[in-house]
Amino acid sequence: MSPTSTLGEQLDGERFWSDLMDQARFGALEGGGLRRLTLGAADNRARLWLMEQGEALGCTSHYDALGNVFLRREGRDPGLAPLLIGSHLDSQPCAGAYDGTLGVVAGLAVLRTLSTLGIAQRRPVEVVSWTNEEGARFAPGASGSAWFAGRRDPETILAAQDDEGITFKAALADCLAQLDAHGAAFRPEPVVPHAFLELHIEQGPVLEEKGVPVCVVTGIQGVNWYEVEVNGQANHAGTTPTASRRDAFMGAHALVDALTEAVAAHDDQVRFTIGRFALSPNSVNTIPQQARFSIDLRHPDAEVLEALDLAFRHLAEKTWAGCSARLEATSRVAPVAFDERLVAVLDEAVKARCPQAPTLVSGAFHDAIHLAQLCPTAMLFTPCRAGISHHPDEHIERADAEVAVRTLADAVERLLNEEETLR
Amino acid sequence: MSPTSTLGEQLDGERFWSDLMDQARFGALEGGGLRRLTLGAADNRARLWLMEQGEALGCTSHYDALGNVFLRREGRDPGLAPLLIGSHLDSQPCAGAYDGTLGVVAGLAVLRTLSTLGIAQRRPVEVVSWTNEEGARFAPGASGSAWFAGRRDPETILAAQDDEGITFKAALADCLAQLDAHGAAFRPEPVVPHAFLELHIEQGPVLEEKGVPVCVVTGIQGVNWYEVEVNGQANHAGTTPTASRRDAFMGAHALVDALTEAVAAHDDQVRFTIGRFALSPNSVNTIPQQARFSIDLRHPDAEVLEALDLAFRHLAEKTWAGCSARLEATSRVAPVAFDERLVAVLDEAVKARCPQAPTLVSGAFHDAIHLAQLCPTAMLFTPCRAGISHHPDEHIERADAEVAVRTLADAVERLLNEEETLR
Repeated sequence: MSPTSTLGEQLDGERFWSDLMDQARFGALEGGGLRRLTLGAADNRARLWLMEQGEALGCTSHYDALGNVFLRREGRDPGLAPLLIGSHLDSQPCAGAYDGTLGVVAGLAVLRTLSTLGIAQRRPVEVVSWTNEEGARFAPGASGSAWFAGRRDPETILAAQDDEGITFKAALADCLAQLDAHGAAFRPEPVVPHAFLELHIEQGPVLEEKGVPVCVVTGIQGVNWYEVEVNGQANHAGTTPTASRRDAFMGAHALVDALTEAVAAHDDQVRFTIGRFALSPNSVNTIPQQARFSIDLRHPDAEVLEALDLAFRHLAEKTWAGCSARLEATSRVAPVAFDERLVAVLDEAVKARCPQAPTLVSGAFHDAIHLAQLCPTAMLFTPCRAGISHHPDEHIERADAEVAVRTLADAVERLLNEEETLR
Repeated sequence: MSPTSTLGEQLDGERFWSDLMDQARFGALEGGGLRRLTLGAADNRARLWLMEQGEALGCTSHYDALGNVFLRREGRDPGLAPLLIGSHLDSQPCAGAYDGTLGVVAGLAVLRTLSTLGIAQRRPVEVVSWTNEEGARFAPGASGSAWFAGRRDPETILAAQDDEGITFKAALADCLAQLDAHGAAFRPEPVVPHAFLELHIEQGPVLEEKGVPVCVVTGIQGVNWYEVEVNGQANHAGTTPTASRRDAFMGAHALVDALTEAVAAHDDQVRFTIGRFALSPNSVNTIPQQARFSIDLRHPDAEVLEALDLAFRHLAEKTWAGCSARLEATSRVAPVAFDERLVAVLDEAVKARCPQAPTLVSGAFHDAIHLAQLCPTAMLFTPCRAGISHHPDEHIERADAEVAVRTLADAVERLLNEEETLR
């Protein structure tokens, strides 16, 4: 390594960007964007492309029982746990070219830099593409990383079916056969990494608004989902005096007032969204009998989520405009705080290039949520235009992405130079 | 007429109730209630039954181009405009036995009383059953009365189709053929009545709550319908900070707050109902792009409706939680105030039996809304259990209904004894 220049500074930004453009061919849609559903033809070709790129750099290719693909640059001490970098190559049905892929191609760019510079690092470095992060073809998503981290039962994953009745198991068998035919080595057991790093687009507006090209992500918000039911009494809209009404819409309206007030009592990191709302019988001239709505509640701090959960439950026990309410939690995912030491290393690398960078908590899920249960994990975000993702309009600025990938390489350099392990 | 007893007191309550039970056979549903869609077999049989009842009392039977059926008890002066009493015999698809029918059978009970007592009144008295008040088979409703009062073009009425593609015209031809075969006389032109009286169930909770068997109705509320659209920006529920959101649900919520505040500035006769509400894309973890909701706004006073219309329009021009709004009036029906002198006559008859009776404004439409444009018109209400109608659970107490029909007879007596006409 040059004593005067960081690994990131020596990274070939031109090649990084052309790799990113190259991979966008697999599943490209006419008019822009791509469709690369997990374990489909385009997704499998992207896996093979990744292996070919790694092999050209002298890396070995591996795959596991879930079709997760690994490129390994051997270390001077092959027995050390590898430093793992990556994300996913699959996409939503009508998506952009950066969600996931950016993090895989960024890992490849780091391997390419180590190789070009002929760096013989002590610790093995691996780049991974996780299978089925999106969950668009087979729900739920993050299958590969959840299995790898021992967080999800393989039988449950394999039994999932797509819209055409094809099982995850059948689609996976086809993929594994292609990887085997390519000559990649099968790795039956997960190798616990030294640490996992994931660069991802923000999928939110903050970095663009602040004009910052990269920042460290300190964790992933917890999410509670609720279904709320408000039960009143249907009646004629013309003949029923206001005082005699038990109007489920007005009950829901009053309850929403109280819920938003409970939310406002906490900090501005709370995300509170009512995304679904339905009335029954849903007739212009009938007082609603029932209102049903969803709540998506997020916060990085488990205690805040618990306090709001309690507050919501108390509110649901009250009467609203003469109506009874019922609140049911339909999903709970606890917040994840990334490893503090790893976050500090990444933040140093970020601040060296961008002193004004904030730290963010991810509002969306990522494979890192599962890896964090297995090894020190942290993420970097780079901005995407207007926060748009899962759409062909998803867009990143090349200049921003280059700063982000150079920052990732700098962080890798810092980690490889560390004497002690993170744990 | 007995000098010591009113017409109402001499009315045969037993027979009135058995008539009401008799007509409930036509279209009776297993388990209660009835289905007597307009111009269907059951509705036509109910027409013939009515004619037979009238003819047995010495009345003549008439029908017109819309299938409206009239029983006429001739007056000593046949040239005088008839006093018209009635309502409708058709029903909603799954209805009770009183909505409409009560008013027709009550008119028949008045004819029966005049006949039994051998009263030779000067002015002709007629009982009518209007065609298609409900509008359940052929929309919109109140076809017969609207045509009779010159308020609706016959071609438009005849062109309406039911769910099976049968036209009003075809169904009507079948009905008219049956009426002709029965021997009823065809009346090509409407005969403008001296006055029109309609007894109807309240279809609201007020009289039951007050424990009052009958009251006079002073008019029919005006109704404005609106469609409101609130447009925000769809975004990820997890990654979009609260301050960056343009949440269409929260915009609609704030606008509803302002609308209800505008309503609260008026008296408690305002009826304000949001019966339909929809979000788009209606996904748990997506901030709503659009909210759409309906408003049903009613008041007896046109000026109040106009003031609220203006207030609603001003509110829709503002920004709500960062969202724009659009308000469109989809329907407007002006309020009707019934003839003051006729209302006074009815109210005297009501107060003689029930001094504590309130006066009400009808929240629902009735055939009287059209007749009021043609001749002095007023209505009586009698309570129905829990305000329920358009359902087999629709129920009236026999004791209440008897007081109501006796009150109607008393009012008829007062009108027949009047020297001068109402106009």
